[in-house]
Amino acid sequence: MKGYSKLTEGLLGQPMLEILTTVCALEAAGKKVYRFEVGDSAIDAYPHIVDAVKKALDEGHTKYVDSLGILPLREAICDYTKRKLGFRPDVSQVAIMPANSVIDFVMRSVVNPGEEVVFSDPGFAVYIAVASYLGMKAVKVPVLEKNDFRLNPEDLLARITDKTRLAIITSPQNPTGGVMTEAEMLRVAEIAKEKDIYLLSDEIYAENIYDCQHYSPAVVDQCRERTIILSGFSKGHSMSGFRLGYAIGPSDLIAKMGQMFETVYTCVPPFIQYAGIAALNTPKELMAERVSRYKKLRDLMVKRLNEIPGITCATPKGAIYVFPNITGTGLSSREFAKVVLEKAGVAVVPGCCFGEGGEGYVRLCYVRDEETIEEACAAIKKALTK
Amino acid sequence: MKGYSKLTEGLLGQPMLEILTTVCALEAAGKKVYRFEVGDSAIDAYPHIVDAVKKALDEGHTKYVDSLGILPLREAICDYTKRKLGFRPDVSQVAIMPANSVIDFVMRSVVNPGEEVVFSDPGFAVYIAVASYLGMKAVKVPVLEKNDFRLNPEDLLARITDKTRLAIITSPQNPTGGVMTEAEMLRVAEIAKEKDIYLLSDEIYAENIYDCQHYSPAVVDQCRERTIILSGFSKGHSMSGFRLGYAIGPSDLIAKMGQMFETVYTCVPPFIQYAGIAALNTPKELMAERVSRYKKLRDLMVKRLNEIPGITCATPKGAIYVFPNITGTGLSSREFAKVVLEKAGVAVVPGCCFGEGGEGYVRLCYVRDEETIEEACAAIKKALTK
Repeated sequence: MKGYSKLTEGLLGQPMLEILTTVCALEAAGKKVYRFEVGDSAIDAYPHIVDAVKKALDEGHTKYVDSLGILPLREAICDYTKRKLGFRPDVSQVAIMPANSVIDFVMRSVVNPGEEVVFSDPGFAVYIAVASYLGMKAVKVPVLEKNDFRLNPEDLLARITDKTRLAIITSPQNPTGGVMTEAEMLRVAEIAKEKDIYLLSDEIYAENIYDCQHYSPAVVDQCRERTIILSGFSKGHSMSGFRLGYAIGPSDLIAKMGQMFETVYTCVPPFIQYAGIAALNTPKELMAERVSRYKKLRDLMVKRLNEIPGITCATPKGAIYVFPNITGTGLSSREFAKVVLEKAGVAVVPGCCFGEGGEGYVRLCYVRDEETIEEACAAIKKALTK
Repeated sequence: MKGYSKLTEGLLGQPMLEILTTVCALEAAGKKVYRFEVGDSAIDAYPHIVDAVKKALDEGHTKYVDSLGILPLREAICDYTKRKLGFRPDVSQVAIMPANSVIDFVMRSVVNPGEEVVFSDPGFAVYIAVASYLGMKAVKVPVLEKNDFRLNPEDLLARITDKTRLAIITSPQNPTGGVMTEAEMLRVAEIAKEKDIYLLSDEIYAENIYDCQHYSPAVVDQCRERTIILSGFSKGHSMSGFRLGYAIGPSDLIAKMGQMFETVYTCVPPFIQYAGIAALNTPKELMAERVSRYKKLRDLMVKRLNEIPGITCATPKGAIYVFPNITGTGLSSREFAKVVLEKAGVAVVPGCCFGEGGEGYVRLCYVRDEETIEEACAAIKKALTK
């Protein structure tokens, strides 16, 4: 009678783990590995954010709190949304939980097994993983380099059927860095309304944007009807290890997601939630300084990659990744990743880990220091040309 | 097409929230409420535990780590298990995640919708909530006051069918405080083996034990075959808000649970995991001091409750609750909770929130200060006798 449930058959794991195993073996053998595979900043969280955690600990914020989050953080998120997007959600529309939990709980709340959820290809591996283990059908919308990696709303529309319950839109996008225009976002909101489906707007990279502006489809219904904003502090505030994110959505849905979170997690540690308040109060100059620093690193990486024969790299307008086209090398994305890891000691994620549409590309997170970028690109060049 | 998934129909929420709503309304109106409903200690985490978090923050442990947890904490848990239960699991058998997630992930990994999971009645509300929203059949084993609230293994055996995949055993037990004997635990392990089912041993209260010893069925298979230990730091180390727990189980199952956790949470914040290492290194005298303090509070609460007409309260051997029999008052558990909250300002959980078997009882978490216990019991007495 022992054995595993059917659900476990749908567990994909993270496809990039195959890279990680080799990385660990190389590092254990004393080899230097330039690690560009993890979607994380080499820059630490600002000291005022860390201090906020310490202060909250000292003040005894170490006990259970409301599953939806502490009120001052939820209010701070309402204020931030007003500043950023021009509307102020009701506090009952806000739930504090890790961003990945938002994906899982939104999908579980509005999609039945066998029904359809639409999102981009290439796209964030967790959308694929959650749909798979929940037995939902993942319908992919191609996101193409020739369209600057922006999802075309009409391509989305063409894939909505009477089984579609949810569309997920990601701008800035992971892994491509594509940023959608205002007109495109408004069209997406219109399509969701016409087709009467839910719309999850993954805005985790909203603070990682260069030479352009971030738009949200949420301005249309103010998250009161069908739009759910997913955001958090990992990417915009270098707080990946804090596991602090949030959802803004219709109050009823947020209440259901809160019940799920209560059941499996109870609440986000309160002393961590105070770090979120501090993060939202980060001085504008510091935020601008970070964006400017990231942009310089992006530009350096794009420049160096384009100097390598067989690689062409577009300049992404958002997120923290470059997504170079490696078809000129004659290698598949998996082969490329293997070669540069073994011969150059550079860890990247094969594009195919983000869906079929990622084949021919690899993802590198460029928030490393200049020296690391220079050395790694030189090593890739050498490995590919010898 | 919009609407919620079938899964949401199974969301129970926490039945004690009905109490919480009234508590909040009373407190907002400036009324003093004696709060015994939350299963949390009024005593804070020891300073060396809080300091460990601060130190880890200073050392920059603020980035993504392995979903299964940081190696030094997993090793420390192996060592602790060796000291406590006499066997040392392999580190691949240990996953760091909140205790509630362990319940959810174990159930999802080994039970299909429609199949059966067996646990005690009364029992922890999260077992019921998870079975409900996952569409599993919860089969209840009565845990009776006349048997000192210990689950009788033969009652468990009688309820195992060919659809049973998992039994959950809880000792010390929530809400009753019952503690099973060594013979009973060994018999449970034997039954699980005979029937070839998984066995989840919820040992979250293993450090909250008085005048007796904690036994685990895991000593039989050392968590290598079918037994999964669930434990954590919320109850034994007053770290409820840290959301730090762990599972010890067969490596294969732990890997699957790790994949689930990776998908919905990525990892427990690393700086919190360092608090777990500090907690496991708490000097014995401090641990003993805490147990002794809790015991005094328990004894006071039992004494005072037994002085109230209509109430009889057994002395629980473990956990952090008393579970008085209130049938002598002529009130249902829900009525009793309503009366003492409205008339005495004392918040308790109606026993029926833990299953039908909890009717006729209420749960109070006694880890409060003496004055609070004295005042609350006096207020209950007054409210019930006037």
